[in-house]
Amino acid sequence: MKLIESMNPRTGEPAGTGVSETPSGELTSALSLAKSAARRYASESLAERALLLRAMADKLDDRADELIPLAEAETGLGKPRLTTELARTTFQLRLFAQVIEEGSFLEATLDTPAPDATPVPRPDLRRQLEALGPVLVFAASNFPFAFSIAGGDTASALAAGCPVVVKAHEGHPELSRRTGEILSSVVADRNLPAGVFTVIFGQQAGRDALVDQRIKAAGFTGSTTGGRALFDLASGRVDPIPFYGELGSINPTVVTKAAVRSRGSEIASGFVNSFTLGTGQFCTKPGLLFLPIGHKLEAELSEAVSAVSATPMLNNRIAESYAKISAELSAHPSIRSMVTPRLHTEPGAWGVPCLFVTSAEQFTEAADTLGAECFGPSSLIVEYASKHELINALQSVEGSLTATIHGEQSDISSLAPVLDVLRPRAGRLIWNGWPTGVAVAWAMQHGGPWPSSTNALHTSVGATAVRRWMRPVTYQSFPHDLLPPALQDGNPLGIPRRVDGALRR
Amino acid sequence: MKLIESMNPRTGEPAGTGVSETPSGELTSALSLAKSAARRYASESLAERALLLRAMADKLDDRADELIPLAEAETGLGKPRLTTELARTTFQLRLFAQVIEEGSFLEATLDTPAPDATPVPRPDLRRQLEALGPVLVFAASNFPFAFSIAGGDTASALAAGCPVVVKAHEGHPELSRRTGEILSSVVADRNLPAGVFTVIFGQQAGRDALVDQRIKAAGFTGSTTGGRALFDLASGRVDPIPFYGELGSINPTVVTKAAVRSRGSEIASGFVNSFTLGTGQFCTKPGLLFLPIGHKLEAELSEAVSAVSATPMLNNRIAESYAKISAELSAHPSIRSMVTPRLHTEPGAWGVPCLFVTSAEQFTEAADTLGAECFGPSSLIVEYASKHELINALQSVEGSLTATIHGEQSDISSLAPVLDVLRPRAGRLIWNGWPTGVAVAWAMQHGGPWPSSTNALHTSVGATAVRRWMRPVTYQSFPHDLLPPALQDGNPLGIPRRVDGALRR
Repeated sequence: MKLIESMNPRTGEPAGTGVSETPSGELTSALSLAKSAARRYASESLAERALLLRAMADKLDDRADELIPLAEAETGLGKPRLTTELARTTFQLRLFAQVIEEGSFLEATLDTPAPDATPVPRPDLRRQLEALGPVLVFAASNFPFAFSIAGGDTASALAAGCPVVVKAHEGHPELSRRTGEILSSVVADRNLPAGVFTVIFGQQAGRDALVDQRIKAAGFTGSTTGGRALFDLASGRVDPIPFYGELGSINPTVVTKAAVRSRGSEIASGFVNSFTLGTGQFCTKPGLLFLPIGHKLEAELSEAVSAVSATPMLNNRIAESYAKISAELSAHPSIRSMVTPRLHTEPGAWGVPCLFVTSAEQFTEAADTLGAECFGPSSLIVEYASKHELINALQSVEGSLTATIHGEQSDISSLAPVLDVLRPRAGRLIWNGWPTGVAVAWAMQHGGPWPSSTNALHTSVGATAVRRWMRPVTYQSFPHDLLPPALQDGNPLGIPRRVDGALRR
Repeated sequence: MKLIESMNPRTGEPAGTGVSETPSGELTSALSLAKSAARRYASESLAERALLLRAMADKLDDRADELIPLAEAETGLGKPRLTTELARTTFQLRLFAQVIEEGSFLEATLDTPAPDATPVPRPDLRRQLEALGPVLVFAASNFPFAFSIAGGDTASALAAGCPVVVKAHEGHPELSRRTGEILSSVVADRNLPAGVFTVIFGQQAGRDALVDQRIKAAGFTGSTTGGRALFDLASGRVDPIPFYGELGSINPTVVTKAAVRSRGSEIASGFVNSFTLGTGQFCTKPGLLFLPIGHKLEAELSEAVSAVSATPMLNNRIAESYAKISAELSAHPSIRSMVTPRLHTEPGAWGVPCLFVTSAEQFTEAADTLGAECFGPSSLIVEYASKHELINALQSVEGSLTATIHGEQSDISSLAPVLDVLRPRAGRLIWNGWPTGVAVAWAMQHGGPWPSSTNALHTSVGATAVRRWMRPVTYQSFPHDLLPPALQDGNPLGIPRRVDGALRR
């Protein structure tokens, strides 16, 4: 049986004893358990589901002292960042508990019968969203808590009433196993069937699960290449299923002349901080900074980048890929390096920050290469001579999770054309901020046009993430005793509902 | 240039002079116009969009005397049915006008800034749904108004703020051209860009448009084979787009013993009426009727079916396919015909009703064949000896738009296991009714698990159909003057919004 072994990126030494890949017989049992748990779990009350999510959050918080060192050994992301990330993860579980208690997510909608309606009579119709069934989650490497075993896909699918099978990421198997054990123990504590939550290991197990008829939807966070391959598998099934992939994102950031004038230094240091954060391994890393020609920030930028030490990357594969891509960029005829290349020869997996610069015109010509995500602490300054050049260049930027503008009050009246180019290219538009913070909130959108997501209609962070795992069901002229509680007369759950077109509580 | 020619199914004679396929140069211009109209149309006020939809409805109603005969000549569906269908279509346009005026469809969500929030501060976040861009609609043959040029996909996409390109169905080109001219004249009357609405002709034009980067989503109503091929094209694009296909649906109907006892005759005649309606060319036709053994309805059923005359089918291809499949079913070793096969030798395309019967056990064994949709006035009675047999048989039924139960008050306490098998297999569950009526309403769901839909999360009928054409965009810390009206302070549109998690108006 193949062993999945992780490495401590700070030392290059093994980070644990390894975890076995899930053999195919075990996978089949796991999927059967998930399938057979689906009906029971979906019919649990919203209160019970909320209790489960909160109990998971509490137990993870309790085990922080055990989990954070495990995560640090396998990812090298550092204790402060991992502490915040675990807190964000448990906050997220609790937010989804609130979301389901509030009840709007069911979208309960009732039309009273209208026997005399024209052109045709209308029967009694009652509609709500219901759980899709077992959900497969592909964990990410770069957020070992927030986008992994207990991350947003897991939390939102459990909130929606779906059993979850998580395919652990190869980068942190020990942490994945331990996190999975903790969540499974909470499922057992609450007397729910074990199939409500399972962790599987190994890429083959992940692919096999994805094409198994028992799996009804899948979530993924990772590379464009990997995500595309899985999207194709999901879409190519005899019975295609929704596949929500968050893939690559370049996250363009535009700085106006006025903003450079009024706070150029602040922008320069904020930018360097944002693109080197977590060794540049954020899906919202600003990969392109559009600066007006004559910005005079070059010295500040290169100093700031040179001052950032090499920091660990998640694993050797990622570090090697980053080194290769940044070397290719260094050699690209259309761009030049703003900082002298440094070498880092310590054992382990390390990322040295890079910053490149090009002109808007050259960027537009080579956007396929220069506008592609480079996973790691690297970014590209694009200098524009005019708004016309800026807009031209932005038009060749692919879909992104975010797009940012740094501007001043005086810019606002003339920014509409820039916004018109950015809006169709991003899921979140940011003013005078940096994209690397993703608040877990009702109004968050974390998903955008291809290739940043496989389906721009959805989000993987925020309250509405639950909708990915639910489908509408309408009950027509149904006997009261067979209606789900959310649709019964008198609104026994006390949730917001729409009745004959009007929202009511 | 290839001509698309329709036939009058009542006579076999040409129904008009034919319409040319859209040449590729013309298609390219149409797509460019749609693309360039997208931003302008999306930024029109909700009031303007509602006016457009209502003006379209009014003008179609005005032209009923011209349109209904055109539709009758090309489809043979009969004047009464076509009159109701046109009224339903204009009712639908007006419902979407109401939906957008009400404003909830924007899902405006605001989170006020929380600089002291833990684990991380929360910025000002404001989220709404925005138009995806140009939408391609593949018109259906069987509803020449309600699921064609001016049908639900068109109406909902226009309501969402998306330009629409409709690929006309080959079955009714003359009606399609005329309906398109009428809608385009309304677009011109309202001084909107012509690219807001276009009709294209020809299968190649449809496929070319589907893989064109200017098209951002597509809707389809038709066969499973045709829909699957288009779904694969849409999913296989370099930049995959959402493809909402409504494909084949078998629509199982279960009758309990008590229901047979109390109103067997009524059920028998209701069933025959439902499956022969519109010559059985409804996607919600009840294709399977589960009756308890000993129902004693055989004589009534076969008499009722024999009393239904042959009626026109939409075209020769459909009539030939129906004749072939019903002949295959007649010869299938596991089933027998309840009615003596009749021949219809008049010119034109005619469908003669058929009714078959089998046992639950035999159905379960041959469900792949017997449980597949047969488009036309044919259905299959499945006789069950026990609830166990019934549930077994239902478990081999594929996903459907609808599932129906005919039962009595006395059945309710014991029906949960049957409902548990039907619920994951259908988008709409009907009690003591027939699935062939699909009310246009807030709470309607017209979409279900594969193969009835390519994506069970959505509906092609009812208020929420607009959501298929919209994606969320979040504005973070944005200047007030750059926010869309729905997200501005003071709620200038007066729409329902969610603020810090709570619904408000």
